[in-house]
Amino acid sequence: MPLTDSMFLLAESREHPMHVGGLQLFVPPEGSGPDYVHELLNVFRATDNIAPNFRKRPADPVGSLGNVWWTYDDTIDFDYHIRHSAIPKPGRIRELLQLTSRLHGSLLDRHRPLWEAHVVEGLEDGRIAVYTKIHHALIDGVSALRLMQKALSEDPAARDCLPPWSIQPGKPRESGADGGFNPMGALRAGLGVAGDIAGLAPASFKIVNQIFRDGDITLPRAPKTILNGPVGGARRFAAQSWEISRIQRVARSSGTTLNDVVLAMVSGALRNYLLEHHALPDEPMTAMVPVSLALRDESAGKEGGGNATGVMVVSLATNRDNGGTRLEEIAYSSRQAKKMLSGLSPRQILALSALQVAPMAMTPMPGFVKHTHPPFNVIVSNIPGPRKPTYFNGAKLDGLYPVSIVTDGQAVNFTLASRDKYLDVGIIGCRTNVPHLQRLLTHLETALAELEQSWG
Amino acid sequence: MPLTDSMFLLAESREHPMHVGGLQLFVPPEGSGPDYVHELLNVFRATDNIAPNFRKRPADPVGSLGNVWWTYDDTIDFDYHIRHSAIPKPGRIRELLQLTSRLHGSLLDRHRPLWEAHVVEGLEDGRIAVYTKIHHALIDGVSALRLMQKALSEDPAARDCLPPWSIQPGKPRESGADGGFNPMGALRAGLGVAGDIAGLAPASFKIVNQIFRDGDITLPRAPKTILNGPVGGARRFAAQSWEISRIQRVARSSGTTLNDVVLAMVSGALRNYLLEHHALPDEPMTAMVPVSLALRDESAGKEGGGNATGVMVVSLATNRDNGGTRLEEIAYSSRQAKKMLSGLSPRQILALSALQVAPMAMTPMPGFVKHTHPPFNVIVSNIPGPRKPTYFNGAKLDGLYPVSIVTDGQAVNFTLASRDKYLDVGIIGCRTNVPHLQRLLTHLETALAELEQSWG
Repeated sequence: MPLTDSMFLLAESREHPMHVGGLQLFVPPEGSGPDYVHELLNVFRATDNIAPNFRKRPADPVGSLGNVWWTYDDTIDFDYHIRHSAIPKPGRIRELLQLTSRLHGSLLDRHRPLWEAHVVEGLEDGRIAVYTKIHHALIDGVSALRLMQKALSEDPAARDCLPPWSIQPGKPRESGADGGFNPMGALRAGLGVAGDIAGLAPASFKIVNQIFRDGDITLPRAPKTILNGPVGGARRFAAQSWEISRIQRVARSSGTTLNDVVLAMVSGALRNYLLEHHALPDEPMTAMVPVSLALRDESAGKEGGGNATGVMVVSLATNRDNGGTRLEEIAYSSRQAKKMLSGLSPRQILALSALQVAPMAMTPMPGFVKHTHPPFNVIVSNIPGPRKPTYFNGAKLDGLYPVSIVTDGQAVNFTLASRDKYLDVGIIGCRTNVPHLQRLLTHLETALAELEQSWG
Repeated sequence: MPLTDSMFLLAESREHPMHVGGLQLFVPPEGSGPDYVHELLNVFRATDNIAPNFRKRPADPVGSLGNVWWTYDDTIDFDYHIRHSAIPKPGRIRELLQLTSRLHGSLLDRHRPLWEAHVVEGLEDGRIAVYTKIHHALIDGVSALRLMQKALSEDPAARDCLPPWSIQPGKPRESGADGGFNPMGALRAGLGVAGDIAGLAPASFKIVNQIFRDGDITLPRAPKTILNGPVGGARRFAAQSWEISRIQRVARSSGTTLNDVVLAMVSGALRNYLLEHHALPDEPMTAMVPVSLALRDESAGKEGGGNATGVMVVSLATNRDNGGTRLEEIAYSSRQAKKMLSGLSPRQILALSALQVAPMAMTPMPGFVKHTHPPFNVIVSNIPGPRKPTYFNGAKLDGLYPVSIVTDGQAVNFTLASRDKYLDVGIIGCRTNVPHLQRLLTHLETALAELEQSWG
């Protein structure tokens, strides 16, 4: 088992589940009856061709660092892994999010392959939800989302779609294997590399030292907020979709990027949320944003650098009370960070990224989170999803909300997926330290509306 | 925090949740509408007078032996603790048991008071289910059941029932505090005392030595079976009710006790189950049965000995293929064990009980369960419930199934509760090592029917 895999197993405790999830919504095909959910379950369970990643489990479920390795189960207890669930009446999105929060807060059984899929009925509008969770040691969030997309078809008439667990990988390891954009991989790589930082070759330190000498780069240090303390085991999940065209209009009119506007929405939401809790810090908060090394290679006109992913820390300018000013400062901060990255080699970016997320590897140390400044205040990941309408055997995908991970020091996480004409936003948080998390949805809309007044 | 409390917290891991549960079924009062489940939830949540046990949590959720102590929360997040859930269509008991299995397999959040109650809708017959789980460090199964009974009324017209968490205890500690029969306390006491056995005063060893010299008692040693290996984290729960009159008829006709007939049912069920798996041991299997010390004091004509509880190990005679023979041997073994206990003082019984369950305290040792004989093959507890029909604000209690604990070496557990004219049987097992656990229900009925042919 690679060290990065075992790190995610070893870092896990009852308070810190290390699985990534996804909440998908489907509109049943026209003409389908009340038995549709069972038909879907039958398709999900009717396969004896399970991909290796979905048959994989730790050989010694209770083992320690010395003896962590993978084994593969030949048979799968489908009734265990693929579950039929329901939400109570009235069957609103609210009830669905409550169930998702509970399901995401419980640990996967290490005696079995590390995944579960829950087919959920009971939504008042007749849609079917599918909540999937997979251990981060098996796959990162982006690869998981890409795998789910592979299960879908752009043809509503197609009836030969296979569930994600039946899709055989082209390469032995899904994680970023096709060299595409892989932002969540940054956190993964970061956590893994940071944990191993003591073992870095002296050459790597030289690289980093050189970066610091050459530019005006400092290690990130964000203000302390209520969102950056230790976390409990219970989760709260909120999700909502926005039309991408709204965000694009603001980006074009303001001369910023779609990502800048998204960060400005997050900034406005966090600012209003913390104001409500009388807990807004005086200093500007910062966000850690995973970036692809491919992007950097493109801008520098060099050949593709493969699947490595870096991170950048961007100011959220939460100390400014005007939304337009916040967007301008975010766009500036983001441009500076990209400019700096574009002057580095992929190897330098990796080393720097590792250093920036390094403090996260220290969070298991007692008191570390309580007594030190966080390296950044929040992680905001944007995952590219399908650009056209997609279907699973005729059922239209109507929501694709990533359900990410919170850790000590990072009690809330925004992960977004684009889907067709929508941006699907998933916010996961610690239930204790992020009370009324769903208010962030309202504040995201308020922040976008404020920007639209200037640039809509 | 008393050592026995912290033992249950420390012994817990993701594979070995240490909470006890109960699955109750209620028939809504006549004339109640579709909103009944919300009315019930409102009653459950509408209290600001929470009993101390339900506000209690470990002060340091991730602490080790040195720093385990309790703290009390002033406010309770009711939406977290009291949950509204649903089962999917067709809403049979099967779907309810599947949900119960999943809920019982996940750990309680140690950052909060250690309990959850799930109000479940969706049963096709309109009944409402309430699944409750409470950490064993807070309360034992018997006390939990008694507390639930206190919430009920024999008067169907009563509308002033309070939920269990609002019932203020008469004494600071529920566990056996009123001196009643407390069989599950034996396991609790046993586990706790056994863990501390190295610290027993020399006097205790003298007592035990004396018992062994005086009688023909040997430490229990049961055959190895597939039910006595290490357990995984996933659970399977099965439940069914039997008319007590059927069991009583067999007991009277055969000159045995109700408990003997219940053990004979378990014996027949285990025998048939293991035969189906080609895994029946040649030697007779044994059951550990918690017994009350009060019983012993009565038979000896002495004054009441309080709340201490002992255990006895009884042969299940699974090597006999005739049900009648099995019942006779079980009754004989049970009489011998009681006779022996009746000659001992409560203090001697406690010391002996601790010694008998002592091997269970060794199960966390790597390889212990794999390489040694189990002290007994199964735990069978019988908990006295209400003898008359009972109601919660007019909703009739229609099922009272205990959901107990499995541990390494004890992969299946039978816990029974009497209710009105019924015996409600709850069987909890490790999902991996007790495949098709629900078959045990069929075998229990077969075993009772066989006994009825001779003595019905």
